[in-house]
Amino acid sequence: MSQGKRRSRGGIPSSADDVAGNGLLNRRALLGGGLAFASAASAATVTGAAAEPLKDAPWSLETGAVTPVLQTPSRFEKNVVRTLSNPNNEMRTSHARTPHHLLDGTVTPNSLHFTINHSGIPDIDPAQHKLVIHGMVKQPLVFTLDTLSRYPLVTRMAFLECGGNSGAMFSNEPVQATAQGLHGLVSNAEWTGVPLSILLDEAGVDRSAKWLIAEGADSLALHRSVPVKKAYEDALVAIYQNGERLMPGNGYPMRLLLPGYQGNMNVKFLRRIKVVNEPAMSYYEARTYSQILPGGKAYRFHFLQEVKSFITNPSFGQALKGPGYYGISGIAYSGNGRIAKVMVSADGGTSWAEAALQEPVLPKAFTRFRMPWRWDGQPVVLQSRASDDAGNTQPTRAEFVAVRGQTKKPVASANAFPNQHYNGPTSWGVASDGSIKHVYA
Amino acid sequence: MSQGKRRSRGGIPSSADDVAGNGLLNRRALLGGGLAFASAASAATVTGAAAEPLKDAPWSLETGAVTPVLQTPSRFEKNVVRTLSNPNNEMRTSHARTPHHLLDGTVTPNSLHFTINHSGIPDIDPAQHKLVIHGMVKQPLVFTLDTLSRYPLVTRMAFLECGGNSGAMFSNEPVQATAQGLHGLVSNAEWTGVPLSILLDEAGVDRSAKWLIAEGADSLALHRSVPVKKAYEDALVAIYQNGERLMPGNGYPMRLLLPGYQGNMNVKFLRRIKVVNEPAMSYYEARTYSQILPGGKAYRFHFLQEVKSFITNPSFGQALKGPGYYGISGIAYSGNGRIAKVMVSADGGTSWAEAALQEPVLPKAFTRFRMPWRWDGQPVVLQSRASDDAGNTQPTRAEFVAVRGQTKKPVASANAFPNQHYNGPTSWGVASDGSIKHVYA
Repeated sequence: MSQGKRRSRGGIPSSADDVAGNGLLNRRALLGGGLAFASAASAATVTGAAAEPLKDAPWSLETGAVTPVLQTPSRFEKNVVRTLSNPNNEMRTSHARTPHHLLDGTVTPNSLHFTINHSGIPDIDPAQHKLVIHGMVKQPLVFTLDTLSRYPLVTRMAFLECGGNSGAMFSNEPVQATAQGLHGLVSNAEWTGVPLSILLDEAGVDRSAKWLIAEGADSLALHRSVPVKKAYEDALVAIYQNGERLMPGNGYPMRLLLPGYQGNMNVKFLRRIKVVNEPAMSYYEARTYSQILPGGKAYRFHFLQEVKSFITNPSFGQALKGPGYYGISGIAYSGNGRIAKVMVSADGGTSWAEAALQEPVLPKAFTRFRMPWRWDGQPVVLQSRASDDAGNTQPTRAEFVAVRGQTKKPVASANAFPNQHYNGPTSWGVASDGSIKHVYA
Repeated sequence: MSQGKRRSRGGIPSSADDVAGNGLLNRRALLGGGLAFASAASAATVTGAAAEPLKDAPWSLETGAVTPVLQTPSRFEKNVVRTLSNPNNEMRTSHARTPHHLLDGTVTPNSLHFTINHSGIPDIDPAQHKLVIHGMVKQPLVFTLDTLSRYPLVTRMAFLECGGNSGAMFSNEPVQATAQGLHGLVSNAEWTGVPLSILLDEAGVDRSAKWLIAEGADSLALHRSVPVKKAYEDALVAIYQNGERLMPGNGYPMRLLLPGYQGNMNVKFLRRIKVVNEPAMSYYEARTYSQILPGGKAYRFHFLQEVKSFITNPSFGQALKGPGYYGISGIAYSGNGRIAKVMVSADGGTSWAEAALQEPVLPKAFTRFRMPWRWDGQPVVLQSRASDDAGNTQPTRAEFVAVRGQTKKPVASANAFPNQHYNGPTSWGVASDGSIKHVYA
């Protein structure tokens, strides 16, 4: 591969196949058939010819294991788990992060969906649980899971992201952590539930009401204020997650789903919706998720999860095995709508190439992007930058921290949360030995 | 609800809201806002007013459970499991069926994806497993999971269905079983893998080759013949299932995925692809999945899973709780492409109404359909009939058995498999007490 040995400088593609610096290839290469790709891949990945049949492996010589009623992953995948911030369930918040660096596609399996619970996971009997809608309504209503299930259901993909996800990106020096450690508080699932608008219409919401107070059945009675407007836009009372009932940590038996809005507002174990005139100014909206700006003031409400993306492969925790072809891949999403475009750079933002987006591109849901890449073995900095169909683009990290600030001292670990709603890029520095570090670029 | 009390006769809608006999409503009702729907739902599902806050439930008064590294369903969902045909792993085939009557949406969670294994589930070390492509190729190739993972990946939804799914529908009398028992050998997942065409191009397939023999690493070395044409159309070597690595029972660490083709051809634990001129006429293609026709002849190859649908809610195993509004819902899919239309009947096929299809409607994948319905408490027969965008429509059961035959005696249980590739409708008879039976209509 003589092309692979030429090195681009200053963002100038080094060959006709390259579309940006340091070996980013035209996304058409993903369709196969291109000689540039084929031979690059061949050099990198084929270990030798084998006209003779393989010798049987041990597992091919004996009857396999019994079929279980519920499948679980192979014992060889035991590192594919959520990381816990509070494994002993002490009297504080428990975070469990999705291992994005070990996954592909767009669905987050229910077992690996991130969760944050502030007082453990309640053990709710669905036959006893009730949801009340009251306040400024003509007719207060009570629903059981059974009666709720008879209302029209809709199914949609949606990401959920904690407002504090990626908080370690506020560190003035890059925290060395995986995509799971940095960005594991976002996941994507297919949710099925009843449009909240139907329930509110049934109750007869007073036209002057502006807010809902949604409250959970956990022991903190976690509650958040939600604009009535959002409730009528696309809010659901979700009762299924990827086809089955909600996971206990994700709000079983019912939760509020506000596509594109801060995770904490998507109240779990939903037991009460009160229609009111004023927001509650509850603990989680007035204190925890009120973000302090550099001047000392705070955003009063910051509901929307802005357009964002990060590369999951290659990323910190992985290592490249020599030069050759690699597929760069990651996740993009926006609380505003659909992802319109993801640009990828291999030279720290000097030059950019457009990634292929996996169809279907759905609103307020993960979009998997892919970029073919021929690595020549020299140090590179990989970065992605997404735009949504409402015209928003991720700011650079420099642009972001100019407005939102950063710490004066490095943050100790990915478990620290200096601030919220980081939506700048993430940069992975690949050294010539193939090792990968988190860098700022 | 005076409208609900009028009964339609002979398929004539009973009111302006009705669009077909026995209370099928216009699918616009699913959008809410319609008075007909709202009051129907209200009468059926609201148990009373509650201006006062609810009393705290026990789980709201104490700290909840510890957060696990892998989430599992609530203990109240322990009936949501696969049913097993061979729980003691005797020396015969093991079937595990998806509980469709307890699920909603379109994704089948990995824990509940159906599996059929003929000699247990092999315990494969992914670091040792190899895939060989050989035969009529310029350059035989060997792939490990690592080298394979560097090829371009694509992600898509696809259903997988056993050719023997719904075999009990060949019984001359309806087998009383759930949608899981009758149709549980079909599931739907998001698969990520390498297009087989790229690997075949890399190996340099001889242009005169017509077939591939795909072989698994299970102890039977299960192998099937696949047309080269299909391999180039949309075949994948899949390595992720709903975001995570394949489940052991679904082919870990790699499997062939042939969207829309008989499940058994989607060879699991894939270890060898031999490019050849002639089909292998292997056990599973020449014997097991060769279907005997009434005249004594057999189809030689029957690869495609035809257009099909069934209602999952309401269905056998459930019971209606009195008259009022219900959401009829089910699954439709076709090996030919996208679902174009699903018609639903509540009077055993006399009159039909068009169901709403959940977006996005994806090719060769589950489409969830929904139909609003106001039950007046009289006996009805519910049935669905799907059409795909290639112009195929499910035959009636009478049309189907006229060509394919049925048993002379009733089949004893849903575990018997008199024949394959049933794609007619399934009819649920609802009695006036709300109980549901499987009927032929």
